[in-house]
Amino acid sequence: MSAASSTMVLLVSCPDRQGIVAAVTDFIARLHGNIVDLEQHVAREDQRFFMRLEFELEGGTVPIEEFPRAFQPVAERFEMEWDLRDPSRRQRMAIAVTREPHCLYDILARCRSGEWNVEVPLVFANREDLRHVAEQFGVPFYVFPITPETREAQERCELELLERERVDFVVLARYMQILSPQFIRRYPNRIINIHHSFLPAFAGPRPYHAAFERGVKIIGATSHYVTEVLDDGPIIEQDVVRVSHRDSVEDMIRKGRDNEKVVLARAIRAHIEHRIIVYRNRTVVFH
Amino acid sequence: MSAASSTMVLLVSCPDRQGIVAAVTDFIARLHGNIVDLEQHVAREDQRFFMRLEFELEGGTVPIEEFPRAFQPVAERFEMEWDLRDPSRRQRMAIAVTREPHCLYDILARCRSGEWNVEVPLVFANREDLRHVAEQFGVPFYVFPITPETREAQERCELELLERERVDFVVLARYMQILSPQFIRRYPNRIINIHHSFLPAFAGPRPYHAAFERGVKIIGATSHYVTEVLDDGPIIEQDVVRVSHRDSVEDMIRKGRDNEKVVLARAIRAHIEHRIIVYRNRTVVFH
Amino acid sequence: MSAASSTMVLLVSCPDRQGIVAAVTDFIARLHGNIVDLEQHVAREDQRFFMRLEFELEGGTVPIEEFPRAFQPVAERFEMEWDLRDPSRRQRMAIAVTREPHCLYDILARCRSGEWNVEVPLVFANREDLRHVAEQFGVPFYVFPITPETREAQERCELELLERERVDFVVLARYMQILSPQFIRRYPNRIINIHHSFLPAFAGPRPYHAAFERGVKIIGATSHYVTEVLDDGPIIEQDVVRVSHRDSVEDMIRKGRDNEKVVLARAIRAHIEHRIIVYRNRTVVFH
Amino acid sequence: MSAASSTMVLLVSCPDRQGIVAAVTDFIARLHGNIVDLEQHVAREDQRFFMRLEFELEGGTVPIEEFPRAFQPVAERFEMEWDLRDPSRRQRMAIAVTREPHCLYDILARCRSGEWNVEVPLVFANREDLRHVAEQFGVPFYVFPITPETREAQERCELELLERERVDFVVLARYMQILSPQFIRRYPNRIINIHHSFLPAFAGPRPYHAAFERGVKIIGATSHYVTEVLDDGPIIEQDVVRVSHRDSVEDMIRKGRDNEKVVLARAIRAHIEHRIIVYRNRTVVFH
Repeated sequence: MSAASSTMVLLVSCPDRQGIVAAVTDFIARLHGNIVDLEQHVAREDQRFFMRLEFELEGGTVPIEEFPRAFQPVAERFEMEWDLRDPSRRQRMAIAVTREPHCLYDILARCRSGEWNVEVPLVFANREDLRHVAEQFGVPFYVFPITPETREAQERCELELLERERVDFVVLARYMQILSPQFIRRYPNRIINIHHSFLPAFAGPRPYHAAFERGVKIIGATSHYVTEVLDDGPIIEQDVVRVSHRDSVEDMIRKGRDNEKVVLARAIRAHIEHRIIVYRNRTVVFH
Repeated sequence: MSAASSTMVLLVSCPDRQGIVAAVTDFIARLHGNIVDLEQHVAREDQRFFMRLEFELEGGTVPIEEFPRAFQPVAERFEMEWDLRDPSRRQRMAIAVTREPHCLYDILARCRSGEWNVEVPLVFANREDLRHVAEQFGVPFYVFPITPETREAQERCELELLERERVDFVVLARYMQILSPQFIRRYPNRIINIHHSFLPAFAGPRPYHAAFERGVKIIGATSHYVTEVLDDGPIIEQDVVRVSHRDSVEDMIRKGRDNEKVVLARAIRAHIEHRIIVYRNRTVVFH
Repeated sequence: MSAASSTMVLLVSCPDRQGIVAAVTDFIARLHGNIVDLEQHVAREDQRFFMRLEFELEGGTVPIEEFPRAFQPVAERFEMEWDLRDPSRRQRMAIAVTREPHCLYDILARCRSGEWNVEVPLVFANREDLRHVAEQFGVPFYVFPITPETREAQERCELELLERERVDFVVLARYMQILSPQFIRRYPNRIINIHHSFLPAFAGPRPYHAAFERGVKIIGATSHYVTEVLDDGPIIEQDVVRVSHRDSVEDMIRKGRDNEKVVLARAIRAHIEHRIIVYRNRTVVFH
Repeated sequence: MSAASSTMVLLVSCPDRQGIVAAVTDFIARLHGNIVDLEQHVAREDQRFFMRLEFELEGGTVPIEEFPRAFQPVAERFEMEWDLRDPSRRQRMAIAVTREPHCLYDILARCRSGEWNVEVPLVFANREDLRHVAEQFGVPFYVFPITPETREAQERCELELLERERVDFVVLARYMQILSPQFIRRYPNRIINIHHSFLPAFAGPRPYHAAFERGVKIIGATSHYVTEVLDDGPIIEQDVVRVSHRDSVEDMIRKGRDNEKVVLARAIRAHIEHRIIVYRNRTVVFH
């Protein structure tokens, strides 16, 4: 959890075959590494194997820098897609907002309280409304007003800013603009959105109004990675709140806000802790 | 709750105006009636008033038979749609099924245990599969095999049966046939369906398969009155269950079953206890 | 909802008898008042009647100042305990904290966003830890370090401060000191606490540790009015979060925090909107 | 899942050390076995390692009969407590009841529908009330009326019956008698109880009445293994239902019943599928 720990996370996805777990855990054992946590999953319908392995090599026979090279033969043998992540590295998270402050407040309060191993170098927005929130937490706030004509140029500026600030991933905390495919492709599975409905129900704008119209008895929120198809990316987390005929649209919006905050926070945490593997537009989210 | 009680339920829906509650409760007081329960709701967006009033006239100045005539002036003054129901009257509920036994078992066990003030004169089906369940509970079981060619004739037989058995309402307990508009119009707001998804998500067939494909983290069930538009009627009750990447379609089906049973049972209970008013394809479900 | 509205809230508790609703609604109707919302409840086991009535007298025949005198005969006839509240009056809420920032951040963000019709004249604490949070939101922060010897004197200072600042009610947002009976009696049913367990389970200190030890599969949080018996006051709101063997005490604390925030916020809102009647150490919380 | 499959389940509990997973998975790989599912957990506070491994040896180099002997060296090296289970073996489950039918109906309906790989050779009770339910499902029903004087003798008869019927485990489906320590010791971690509260709150009799008295906003149910301390055994599963001031004790009992059924069914399923390891009066319940 802390920077002092030398724990590493190995994420693996490969065709399911005999002996994968044995091969990997044996490999770690030979390096005198210590497995701290292991979670595996087999998607039977796809014959696909997934694993998240948290281990430490302290006192091991191989320094972590040489792990990838040493691991390569195992990876090749099982045709693995794999990734080695260092949880002690503090990731840099940008937040995009428009007018609704609740998610922004919640995220910044968590960051300030040290709940996540993350830095927030900047908040960006298409309006001025929430500048005071960012500034209250001492975080630089950038505004890129977007019209159909200016979108392309503005997004270029945004991307430059993100690059300059070495941003690892972006959180859309009720950001009410649609990102272009160019933008999205720069951060594959690294843009997390919160949509204020239980997707796939009520995709698109004004989901609480649509939920009210339909007369549902439960409303939801969905956090997902952004893909080029609107509100269609791999779902990371969802949760719901009960409503009744007594709840007006405004009540739904109010109850929904508390749900959105929590759902988005859980998704951010899973991302930061390298718990997510995306496969076929779905997610494996290890505990 | 019991047949001995002389409680009556008055359901009212009318344009919202000053003085409705006062007029109605004053009317009851003048009859020396006693209000046992009162719940009201104003749908502000529609300027519509709804009320459920449970009262008893024992020792009152007017016998219940004369209530409607006496109440008429109040009703007219406020342009009420209203309904007087006698909870002590045991309603007759038909159940339609196909292959899945869980809802049928659950409903019949509740009826047998006396949980609801209801009788089940018959179960009907389009297949033989669940005959043993109905017979185990001593309930007559009728099969109407349906093909595109026979549908019309078979539905006529079904309707005759329901009429002959003086059925008050029909529960589709995972009945996998689509009812014709003719059938539905005979039982307006008196056919209750359980759909195995969180509507409006995953309407239509095989919702658990669709939910699995989309990678949702929560699955649901929806109980609604059947209207001529498939899976689109007024929602009475919904609930959800959490799932994860570990759950196969089969796991979702299994977890979903427990949810379906409870959601359907809650809807049936609300219907039996005269707690539901339908308005603009939505429901007001009083506590 | 807004200060412009002249809506008033009448809270009533009295022995259950025939004609109460009729008498009250008729009284309002005679004043040409308009009932905006009415919710009533009869606690059968206690033969006790409760009502929350929201009404407006705009254009009525009696100014609101004269309402109490006019209503007195009705109240006496039914032996009512009653209270007339003005939702447009902005209440003054003090917050007490110790070390945990999550509830404080959440409350202050809601206040700043205008979610509640409330003012926060001050935060007080027994330690310095959270001064930065209060100051970030521009709210005065007072520290009263408490030891067994200083408790009495410090509480006197606290009470003077609360009085000077005309505080209406106090929220203990993870305040880790036990208030004296003297303090509590000054704010009967006006001190709201959040306890980080599902009361009555795990009353007292370190409830998450106790929950972990016992091996529960669900943890909870409870918001209640403070009475002289520790963790025993009337419960306003509770909610829970699922845990498993995989959750360490630290995981429970983390998951619990999100639950505590929401449970406390719901209780505060119910209090601010005059939705709570306390009776026999239980609460009636109108919708 | 089916009897045809030759999948085996290995349950392991041992002190946490380097190399356990590698040793076990390597052992399976050497036998040319195939790991179907692997879940492990480390209880850090106890330095204890737990694992559930599902594997098949079809076409392996060692027949399953010889697995235990072959595995012994690995087990000894890591000081394992371990157990090899055959999921294809149909376990024999006895059910004990008193008066409440809902859990019994639910369990028998699941068994009849083939939801679980289990047989029910008998239901026993201390009263006649539910004989008709058991007989409806064709299950033998035995009554052992129990008074303080007859308890010892009756329990002896019960145990003889259970033995004669080769019962693997016992489910107390709202059985309102306290089992003697002698009885409990014969089925360690093999007697599953459903308690109708959210333990440890409201242990003992009449928990819904106690919950009502306390004014809680949520009620629960707890399924646990029976130990010699009443309502104190290792918790397998819990769930809750929301209530409000509107719910009488009878409403709580009714809502609670649906919760009890589901909680008990989930616990039974986890037991049948060999997903539970008990350690220090807590359970590890693998997914």
